[in-house]
Amino acid sequence: MSDYTPPRVWTWEKESGGTWASQNRPIAGPTHDKDLPRGDHPYQLYSMGTPNGQKVTILFEELLAAGHPTEYDAWLIDISEGDQFGSGFVAVNPNSKIPALMDHTGDTPVRLFESAAILLHLAERYDAFLGPDRPEMLSWLFWLQGAAPYLGGGFGHFYAYAPEPMEYPIDRYAMETKRQLDVLDRHLADRRFLAGDSYTIADIATFPWYGRLVFGKAYDAGEFLSVQDYTHVLRWAHEIDARPAVRRGTRVNRTGDDPSFVRERHAASDLD
Amino acid sequence: MSDYTPPRVWTWEKESGGTWASQNRPIAGPTHDKDLPRGDHPYQLYSMGTPNGQKVTILFEELLAAGHPTEYDAWLIDISEGDQFGSGFVAVNPNSKIPALMDHTGDTPVRLFESAAILLHLAERYDAFLGPDRPEMLSWLFWLQGAAPYLGGGFGHFYAYAPEPMEYPIDRYAMETKRQLDVLDRHLADRRFLAGDSYTIADIATFPWYGRLVFGKAYDAGEFLSVQDYTHVLRWAHEIDARPAVRRGTRVNRTGDDPSFVRERHAASDLD
Repeated sequence: MSDYTPPRVWTWEKESGGTWASQNRPIAGPTHDKDLPRGDHPYQLYSMGTPNGQKVTILFEELLAAGHPTEYDAWLIDISEGDQFGSGFVAVNPNSKIPALMDHTGDTPVRLFESAAILLHLAERYDAFLGPDRPEMLSWLFWLQGAAPYLGGGFGHFYAYAPEPMEYPIDRYAMETKRQLDVLDRHLADRRFLAGDSYTIADIATFPWYGRLVFGKAYDAGEFLSVQDYTHVLRWAHEIDARPAVRRGTRVNRTGDDPSFVRERHAASDLD
Repeated sequence: MSDYTPPRVWTWEKESGGTWASQNRPIAGPTHDKDLPRGDHPYQLYSMGTPNGQKVTILFEELLAAGHPTEYDAWLIDISEGDQFGSGFVAVNPNSKIPALMDHTGDTPVRLFESAAILLHLAERYDAFLGPDRPEMLSWLFWLQGAAPYLGGGFGHFYAYAPEPMEYPIDRYAMETKRQLDVLDRHLADRRFLAGDSYTIADIATFPWYGRLVFGKAYDAGEFLSVQDYTHVLRWAHEIDARPAVRRGTRVNRTGDDPSFVRERHAASDLD
């Protein structure tokens, strides 16, 4: 049994939390003054090429490929440097998470935060990638938003980022992640895409998380989670991965050494 | 340091997981054959009065109070009994979570799952509780769906349901829960509701989770999280809690001993 007893009142006494510890705080709000840059395009995206960031850049590239006027500036918010706690960013997203968007297409600029809110806002504006079955599309879009915290903040954290391996949390979140993969796998066994025959923002939201996972690229956990067993998810992920706009969108706001990565995107030529 | 090393391949070897252990599985799909009942009303809700379930019954009661034709049957899906794994329920929600809805208002019945998908579907159908600022409403609606897994599946699990107290996970999720409360508190310091002056489905989604938390009714954690400090959240929660439709909606599909609770709702008179 554990020899730990929680205190009566929780207090912030120490830095802990592994790889991303310095980014975790029990309070909200800005830590420093910093304005956001603004470019020439109607859409100003403040993001990073994590799975949540990729959702939005994939949709921007899909909309552009389909002929919609969605030219955008994608500015890097480096969460490892604390950029998400700058005053300008917090004014766009009080939750201090990427991605956040300023939409300057109307008379008054509007802010949006939460990746799926941005997806739905843009897809509705251009009546694109919504599919014909809105109830099914909405169900899967919201499913992803509630599921991914178990994959990323749960499994990914305890398997890859926590300061030491802990059996109970790893078991808990591995079980849930495998259940989620099985939910997708059974659903995709006889459907081309999540909402049926049409590729929608539900697929765009889900691919960067669960597609990357079944490709073995997330948390080095492919073998641990036996991702090769989810054959229908793999078939679906390969089809999405082959789309040119997906290839472009997943390269934006990336900071690694891969020569295909671009830290910021301000013109189509940045990705050509 | 930990003496645990994860295996190369995770396998389902044992039941673990505390209070809700028997409900956690690494596979999806039904465990038994069981059809769902169907009543006379256009909306058939299959749910339980947890925070996610309450969101939908609050909206149904709000819509009825506003004069919309949203009569509904609310059937109890007892997740402590495994009802969510019955074949009929899984056909409506392949994710085996409450709430799930069958909408029989059109020529062809449609399914919806995920509480916020149901909220958006119903609010759009009747153009009600959407507010005038859709980008802000959507941002907060999706914020809640991504935040609550840290409160419920994270903090609630490790603080109240896990088989023994574990310091690192409790610290991790207490910190994040307090950060979320502070996000809400700063935002509500100068706004009546989440999306501005209008009460919307973003409030309806957030109240059962964070309102209950600041009232000290969630996980017996009021003192631990110092919930009394979040005065603007408390002000907001009290205003919502006083709404008659909220009072009615939070009593539906409840299984405890409180005499105000109703296990199922099939007519307005069940709540009168």
